[in-house]
Amino acid sequence: MKKLLNKPEDFVRESLEGVALAHSDTVKAHFEPNFLYRADAPVSSKVAIISGGGSGHEPMHIGFVGKGMLDAACPGEVFTSPTPDQILEAAKLVHRGKGVLSIVKNYSGDVMNFQMAGELLSSEEFRFINVLIDDDVGVKGGLSTQGRRGVGTTVFAEKICGAAAEDGYSLDDLVTLCRRVNLSGRSMGVALSSCTVPASGVPTFELGDSEMEVGIGIHGEQGRERMPMMNADSITELLSLSITEDPAYKRSLPEWDEGTCTWIDRKVTSQPFKPGDRVLAFVNGMGGTPLAELYVVYRKLFEICREKGLEIVRSLVGNYITSLEMQGCFITLLKTDDELTRLWDLPVKTPSLRWGI
Amino acid sequence: MKKLLNKPEDFVRESLEGVALAHSDTVKAHFEPNFLYRADAPVSSKVAIISGGGSGHEPMHIGFVGKGMLDAACPGEVFTSPTPDQILEAAKLVHRGKGVLSIVKNYSGDVMNFQMAGELLSSEEFRFINVLIDDDVGVKGGLSTQGRRGVGTTVFAEKICGAAAEDGYSLDDLVTLCRRVNLSGRSMGVALSSCTVPASGVPTFELGDSEMEVGIGIHGEQGRERMPMMNADSITELLSLSITEDPAYKRSLPEWDEGTCTWIDRKVTSQPFKPGDRVLAFVNGMGGTPLAELYVVYRKLFEICREKGLEIVRSLVGNYITSLEMQGCFITLLKTDDELTRLWDLPVKTPSLRWGI
Repeated sequence: MKKLLNKPEDFVRESLEGVALAHSDTVKAHFEPNFLYRADAPVSSKVAIISGGGSGHEPMHIGFVGKGMLDAACPGEVFTSPTPDQILEAAKLVHRGKGVLSIVKNYSGDVMNFQMAGELLSSEEFRFINVLIDDDVGVKGGLSTQGRRGVGTTVFAEKICGAAAEDGYSLDDLVTLCRRVNLSGRSMGVALSSCTVPASGVPTFELGDSEMEVGIGIHGEQGRERMPMMNADSITELLSLSITEDPAYKRSLPEWDEGTCTWIDRKVTSQPFKPGDRVLAFVNGMGGTPLAELYVVYRKLFEICREKGLEIVRSLVGNYITSLEMQGCFITLLKTDDELTRLWDLPVKTPSLRWGI
Repeated sequence: MKKLLNKPEDFVRESLEGVALAHSDTVKAHFEPNFLYRADAPVSSKVAIISGGGSGHEPMHIGFVGKGMLDAACPGEVFTSPTPDQILEAAKLVHRGKGVLSIVKNYSGDVMNFQMAGELLSSEEFRFINVLIDDDVGVKGGLSTQGRRGVGTTVFAEKICGAAAEDGYSLDDLVTLCRRVNLSGRSMGVALSSCTVPASGVPTFELGDSEMEVGIGIHGEQGRERMPMMNADSITELLSLSITEDPAYKRSLPEWDEGTCTWIDRKVTSQPFKPGDRVLAFVNGMGGTPLAELYVVYRKLFEICREKGLEIVRSLVGNYITSLEMQGCFITLLKTDDELTRLWDLPVKTPSLRWGI
């Protein structure tokens, strides 16, 4: 294991310190418990938006804290969910009476700990609503999973809801919006190499010199299939078609119930893509793949979308949800409309996503 | 070699196509010869700024084309200088009668080919001036080198001069400014792993499991010393002190002579850093190093600068000058003043660096 690292147990804290020092006009760090929050927090007259998850996926989420996106982000240890007290303290600090929208990726630890924070926080004076992101079509169907994992759509949800909050949306409208964004997005990834969690020091999984893992999760979860290595166009086709040909999908654990502070099953269906749809397209690197390769993928994705009658109206290409130094990529397509595209375009100023400010 | 790649010989063109498709509101691609240029080029009433170099370092330079930065960038094959005809055609397309500033990193092929383009282009009606960047203190002294290589200061030079051109600076003022930026910056890097050029398919150099190459060049050029792997703080200290303790340095091949269209030796001296200096700080990832690790480095760099009496007034942390999937980082410090900081802050809209627009 060769990393720019001191003691593995200090990695998350030291990285958080670095972010706060490098972007002191935008964010501040809080330690014990660890979270990053807007330098101008709490922001009056707006709903607060928080997120969080295991570290090792930077810039997600700590790189997305700032005006027009998140009010706070809670980083767990590497590939480990944040604890309820991190979420609790972050939410309290950024709340200003309008409620908190909490964007949660569908991983069992995250789901459990954000639920616990919700139970502890929720009151008539302090509304706290979790919304799940579960967009990863790479998850094999079956009883062994808790449904699809949350990946690329998370970035769209955080940007679009962040802009809407800044624009004055109420908590209820933001919850509706965030659920709609989630139901509009689908993602699929491939890993060309493994990654090494600092505290373990050994690769998370083994992958042969001529193999790739198709449908990989962002923590190295097993995908749909281990296949022989292919060229970029074939890989892009494989990922894109998994997304565009994914049928209507019923979520099994979709919605937070404010009354009982639990997740309840509403059987909400995500509709498949169809010709004429306008989409936001996202080619995400997993940390160890050069940007130039991601643009080779984007080139083919653009061609496939055109053939399928999908119009890419905005794009994002780069390393935004990483798995440490893993080589590989994720593709995300999200069906958009005038409202979502307008919110995507609104100004944002965070350490890792910035425009218009 | 596992890469998101089709035929190696198509890599640069396909990546360029992807950039142009993903950022069609900002840039356009030209093929045969290959270059990327501003979608609104040529831009009236301003000096045009171009750059270029081998591919494999993305986002540099093609990710820096757009309003407030470069008018065009010429990507050579991977780790190979652009040819004179690329530079020639790009310069002709973006020129609008105010002259062209060409920012050239000090590598023998680049120096030669930009010189050739200058010879072919220069006339009274078409002023074309090359300015060298040679900021890498990692180069060992001695007769075998052609002086220091150009690295991190290139990003500062392109942003600052790009803003100044937008702001109405004349060609002569831009040349003076660009030379001043170059003389104000110093960089030093370390590699933890090698990288593989697609066309060769084998690692550029070998590095043992517990070794690092200190003073590495961005094409894998041998550095000052091969050392046992250290922790992040020690590596940061090693790189930072090489920069802050670098003495006054006399450039041996510094300036373009417009009359003769050649490089002439003016023996310009770069002054060392001293307590009280304000600096721009840049922690650059080489492609395969996770962002979270770069922030661990920034945290220590901040501490060292404070101890040395250097005030970091702006920072940049991320993968901006890469060497394909190499693991490692470069640190750049650049002495700044009110003029340079103001120009750094002005709006920019390129595929990979954007703010204020």
